[in-house]
Amino acid sequence: MHLTIKAPDWIAELLARSPKVFQTPEDRMRLVIELARENVTRQTGGPFGAGVFDADGRLVAAGVNIVARSNCSILHAEMVAIALAQKNLGRYDISDNGKSDYELVASTEPCAMCFGAIPWSGVTQLVCGARDEDARRIGFDEGPKLPNWPEALEERGIQVSRDVLRQEAVDVLEYYVKTGGTIYNARGGQAE
Amino acid sequence: MHLTIKAPDWIAELLARSPKVFQTPEDRMRLVIELARENVTRQTGGPFGAGVFDADGRLVAAGVNIVARSNCSILHAEMVAIALAQKNLGRYDISDNGKSDYELVASTEPCAMCFGAIPWSGVTQLVCGARDEDARRIGFDEGPKLPNWPEALEERGIQVSRDVLRQEAVDVLEYYVKTGGTIYNARGGQAE
Repeated sequence: MHLTIKAPDWIAELLARSPKVFQTPEDRMRLVIELARENVTRQTGGPFGAGVFDADGRLVAAGVNIVARSNCSILHAEMVAIALAQKNLGRYDISDNGKSDYELVASTEPCAMCFGAIPWSGVTQLVCGARDEDARRIGFDEGPKLPNWPEALEERGIQVSRDVLRQEAVDVLEYYVKTGGTIYNARGGQAE
Repeated sequence: MHLTIKAPDWIAELLARSPKVFQTPEDRMRLVIELARENVTRQTGGPFGAGVFDADGRLVAAGVNIVARSNCSILHAEMVAIALAQKNLGRYDISDNGKSDYELVASTEPCAMCFGAIPWSGVTQLVCGARDEDARRIGFDEGPKLPNWPEALEERGIQVSRDVLRQEAVDVLEYYVKTGGTIYNARGGQAE
């Protein structure tokens, strides 16, 4: 009765040659977009990357979409980054009961599941690249989300920044389509 | 860059002395309520149990809330049951692209995250015991959910049954409170 989540080995290699501190939201977004792009190139999953960063801009944990290779529908990039950050920090509340600020950076706005996971995670900021409508346009299903989801997070003390390097993030979504990546959706099948 | 999710050992013992087929929704709900109650008694997590069952009523995988012991906020009972069912079936779409029906049975209605995870999982039915307002009444935060969440699942071809052995499920929530269980919530701290 156990399950091991394993991120692709190339992530450690990519991070080893990356800076240790990512000063600006754009720097942090650039990293997670690179993760998303590499995930497509290496054919290890969908075109989504995420990372949890501390208040000094240091990466706590990175994630990419590993649904297909892990046979596990919950392993979206954000979920992997959150779970690994909690493992690295040794607590299920990343903020440590509000003592520290941590930022979740996602190459695309969260789906319904990842949106719901964010308040539980303890991150205090969310930074997004591509919009959910960008994901929907190429056939990804973001699931049944609250229309006012950014406000719902703000009400819980989680700041939301949108459209950070949006076009670069959209480019990765389109790169995935061009390379013939599988578009699966929440009805279980492939998109029409 | 890996994470191992381990369900408590007592689950295998409990299942070993349980029937192999759970004929009715009530039979299946009785099992997940027992899992929820045992999780409290054994002090291995919150008062929530879940299971994925096939169309013949056979249990594919069970889950309980193991957030605190795993230091992982995403490990609600439903998420554990879904992830283990997908591992056992060897596919991220439990329904195998709509070929088979599978039921997720949850002792309490899903929080915002688990709700969002259900369409991705491939289950085609959701059966719930306690209502989300029952969980809220004892201080658990269900997160920002769509008000019409059952309809949103139905629109995606997922049938929803509510109030199955609701009182027995509520009893476990109250048992948890009486035993002094931690009520954590989505703002990261303890409930007021």
